[in-house]
Amino acid sequence: MKSAATLEDIYFPIERPLKATPGAILDILSTPNELAADVIRYFFSSQGKLLRPALTFLGFAVKQGRPDLENRLLHLAAAFEVFHSATLIHDDIIDSAYIRRSIPTINVKWGAQTAVLVGDYLHDKAIGAVFQNGNEKIVSLFLQTAGTVCDGEIHELKEKDNFNLTENEYLDIVDKKTAALLGCCVEAGAMLAGATPEEAEALKRYGKYFGIAFQIVDDCLDFTGNQQEFGKTLGADCAAGVLTLPLIRLTQLVDEKKKSDVFKIFKSEMGTNKFQTLLSMILEYDTIDYSFEKARQFIEKAKLELLIFPDSPARKSLIQMADYVLERNK
Amino acid sequence: MKSAATLEDIYFPIERPLKATPGAILDILSTPNELAADVIRYFFSSQGKLLRPALTFLGFAVKQGRPDLENRLLHLAAAFEVFHSATLIHDDIIDSAYIRRSIPTINVKWGAQTAVLVGDYLHDKAIGAVFQNGNEKIVSLFLQTAGTVCDGEIHELKEKDNFNLTENEYLDIVDKKTAALLGCCVEAGAMLAGATPEEAEALKRYGKYFGIAFQIVDDCLDFTGNQQEFGKTLGADCAAGVLTLPLIRLTQLVDEKKKSDVFKIFKSEMGTNKFQTLLSMILEYDTIDYSFEKARQFIEKAKLELLIFPDSPARKSLIQMADYVLERNK
Repeated sequence: MKSAATLEDIYFPIERPLKATPGAILDILSTPNELAADVIRYFFSSQGKLLRPALTFLGFAVKQGRPDLENRLLHLAAAFEVFHSATLIHDDIIDSAYIRRSIPTINVKWGAQTAVLVGDYLHDKAIGAVFQNGNEKIVSLFLQTAGTVCDGEIHELKEKDNFNLTENEYLDIVDKKTAALLGCCVEAGAMLAGATPEEAEALKRYGKYFGIAFQIVDDCLDFTGNQQEFGKTLGADCAAGVLTLPLIRLTQLVDEKKKSDVFKIFKSEMGTNKFQTLLSMILEYDTIDYSFEKARQFIEKAKLELLIFPDSPARKSLIQMADYVLERNK
Repeated sequence: MKSAATLEDIYFPIERPLKATPGAILDILSTPNELAADVIRYFFSSQGKLLRPALTFLGFAVKQGRPDLENRLLHLAAAFEVFHSATLIHDDIIDSAYIRRSIPTINVKWGAQTAVLVGDYLHDKAIGAVFQNGNEKIVSLFLQTAGTVCDGEIHELKEKDNFNLTENEYLDIVDKKTAALLGCCVEAGAMLAGATPEEAEALKRYGKYFGIAFQIVDDCLDFTGNQQEFGKTLGADCAAGVLTLPLIRLTQLVDEKKKSDVFKIFKSEMGTNKFQTLLSMILEYDTIDYSFEKARQFIEKAKLELLIFPDSPARKSLIQMADYVLERNK
């Protein structure tokens, strides 16, 4: 398989709006409230990959949206990143995570109370900015997506420690909690540019397949990643009782006796030992490879959705971005 | 002073939409997600006073809104209650409260993780319903209000354990965290009915003054209420390190030496003793009376705002509702 392009290559056609995104995010979040301002500055000091803004810009670019809409596009894309950040901040409370983007989480640094409220604040500001910069269809899509994301997270929480979770249930959760927003971003960008409903739907499906693959790879990295590069605590899912594909697949491959042993290990107090034991079983049964193969299938489906669009730098970036998911290590 | 009307009397002109409100709330929140559905059913099994829907209906009624708008009004009012419920659920995490409306809080019954997510879910659904049933001005007002509420809560959190908090800062926090939404409700109801900007502004101010008085009385009840009737844990503010008017006034009346003693008591581990000691000082210095007098002044200002409207059952209810705040014990 050929090596995927770097994020820098992929982002080249949308370099300008991406560079403006951090400023637009701080624009949306500007507040005289000192505590909120401190936390916001801290959180965004460590930049993520800006996947959601990138997808929004590419959705717009693939449909060659009008230049006079670019300011609205920028703030829409920034709003999606702010919304995503709000969910990350609340997720980190839920998972008791202590590292995010290589720095301590807000709940570690300021406590869960501040994390709850700052998450709410980002959430509100994101919705406000979508309302200001989108159109009726985009707002409606976004509000529906926000509900879906939350629904997926509640579903995931409900299935914690459920060792009988099936692969399909897992995929349904991933579809809602991660893929829905990525689909919304690329679709909203295209909608702003005036895409037809068919084009918008195709890009939404691209984003959803992309998102499922992205989450599967993320879940694999939670086992096999390099903590430094990954920027998150390894084994966080296991520690929080969340079953992901590598482990779900393992429960399908072993017999009932062994499954119950694995469950005991999974339920034991988290420690390096527990994690290493689970990891060695996962490697023994090749379930990381299995998971990557699943991710690869979703990436293929994602790319097929792009066939209805003529060739362009933006379309090329969307293709490369899909391939990038399978090669990423952070 | 004449005795205030009962809530039943006050609610008489809006009895029909109020009766329909619990159903509309469950409408907005209907979900196939079992965990979310369980938590939602549980939370709304214990009805609050539905103050926010009532204010929305009265704002609409005082301007005699068109009957064909009543279904939108109903869902708008229900959405405000859902939004308010979302903030209560997150507040209870932040304050580690264990009783709300006389039943255990969601964080006690399901844990903080579920409470974070269900709060987010209600939040999203509320905004979605306002978007569906309001108009552009109402959505814009509501989104701005949501940001203000959150801002007020972050401000309150920042000032925890700040024994130098002034009365004005306290009033500013109360204005944002409680009064803003009450003002939004009555203003949005009137906006839907086609109120002029002047009328809408007057009703917003009514709601804000009403809300400040309401919160001051609430903060007094946290000291002197009957836990059974109040439906919340007494002394919750003190336990959470939140300074409210009765205590702030006390810090103004005593000398520095005594203030530092009070602070030590305030900062000590919560227990019946701590609460009783603070309560006896508050009673000794009559700061509950002082706080009620403040509340009374805001209620007078609230009622003055109603003078521009002709007499009507709805206007009468708004006046009675203001008086009710000063007489309530739950």
